[in-house]
Amino acid sequence: MNYKLQLMYDGTAYAGWQKQNNAITIQDQVEKALAVILRQPVSLVGVSRTDAGVHAADYTANFHAEGLFDAKKICRGVNALLPPDIRIMDAIPCSDNFNARFDAIKKTYVYRIDCSSYGNAFYRNFVWHHPIPLDVESMKHAAGYFLGLHDFSAFMAQGGSSKTFTREIMESHLTEQNNILEYHITGNGFLYNMVRIIAGTLVWVGRGKINPDDIPNILESKDRTHAGMTAPAKGLTLAKAYYNL
Amino acid sequence: MNYKLQLMYDGTAYAGWQKQNNAITIQDQVEKALAVILRQPVSLVGVSRTDAGVHAADYTANFHAEGLFDAKKICRGVNALLPPDIRIMDAIPCSDNFNARFDAIKKTYVYRIDCSSYGNAFYRNFVWHHPIPLDVESMKHAAGYFLGLHDFSAFMAQGGSSKTFTREIMESHLTEQNNILEYHITGNGFLYNMVRIIAGTLVWVGRGKINPDDIPNILESKDRTHAGMTAPAKGLTLAKAYYNL
Repeated sequence: MNYKLQLMYDGTAYAGWQKQNNAITIQDQVEKALAVILRQPVSLVGVSRTDAGVHAADYTANFHAEGLFDAKKICRGVNALLPPDIRIMDAIPCSDNFNARFDAIKKTYVYRIDCSSYGNAFYRNFVWHHPIPLDVESMKHAAGYFLGLHDFSAFMAQGGSSKTFTREIMESHLTEQNNILEYHITGNGFLYNMVRIIAGTLVWVGRGKINPDDIPNILESKDRTHAGMTAPAKGLTLAKAYYNL
Repeated sequence: MNYKLQLMYDGTAYAGWQKQNNAITIQDQVEKALAVILRQPVSLVGVSRTDAGVHAADYTANFHAEGLFDAKKICRGVNALLPPDIRIMDAIPCSDNFNARFDAIKKTYVYRIDCSSYGNAFYRNFVWHHPIPLDVESMKHAAGYFLGLHDFSAFMAQGGSSKTFTREIMESHLTEQNNILEYHITGNGFLYNMVRIIAGTLVWVGRGKINPDDIPNILESKDRTHAGMTAPAKGLTLAKAYYNL
């Protein structure tokens, strides 16, 4: 039986989603807890590798297991074993060929920037604290240029596994509330570090280092050195993955 | 010169506001950082002792120091020395006889309850995770009974220093959003553990252990054993203190 898993995690304490030698990851923790509860080894397919320190509000994974288990029982058992910074929200039987990674049609990420001079004590692990004043209107203007189909090579770090570089962005906008900037981006796929490089580029626009109307040229250049810095991991949250189900 | 200090803290790692032997407190941390920046010993008067694990979003304190210092410089210097779970938001000169504790005319507390079955990973240090279903309408009804002038002896833990037990409550209401219940209470003063006992009593109402219309009788009884449990500290945040200034 194939199960679709929804989970959330505060990634502060982990070396990202993906299993690694010599580092604790979210995948590790969840697979271990599931194996105890289901009394069999479990191998998870996650919608996305998230970097060390990146969070997820509604992450989708899937796993195959022998037997039919009740979602509530899986959740209760697994959550009792998991540390409180990783929580399973649902675990329901799904079609046998569902694959959390390859079947995702789009994903939404949120990048948060704390613009207060002091740095909010409550949000400190979930934001990039950036006390230097930003021109938010320019950043909003720049954000619009990412909408649509583009080759995002200029917004990709080395080390990714992507072989195509064109992605479609359906949502790219910035909101501001109580000193916190929230950048929402939804796309059919993302290159390695793409959201963090876009967020860092928006901050450079906000600081006047990049003209917002230069974003189309940076996209066209396909040259990483023309975009802004890679924003810190802790400001990034994978908000949701979407499926045709 | 007398200075009025606004600060915020995530109380998770501390044994409360008030200085103690053999325990790390918020007052300790702030006094130590201020002493370094102002180059003199500093003694803080805080608006309220908060218990171990209780948080503050906008806490007021005051201190006397020799010399006139710029608020921005104090904040920048002190925040650079403080751990990121304590932040100074402002430090402005005020009238010589201002006393953060005795001059507070009212205070607002917020108590948060996470009703999700799994327990939100992001809010885990700021809520009481209570997965058993609650009758929120009954709780809202019960909350209204705390409004006005009452003797709150039944909602006081032993060990407080209060000599009078009548307090006026100007705001007492419950809101619900995304599985999180927020109870807001504003009063001209609070007895020891009063908000946590009120929150615990509301939860007992929500679980059907106390009838909402019994709240007036519990108040009149002045008997702590008639009220509900003391809700966990970590769900409590001191939101704001008000002054006639």
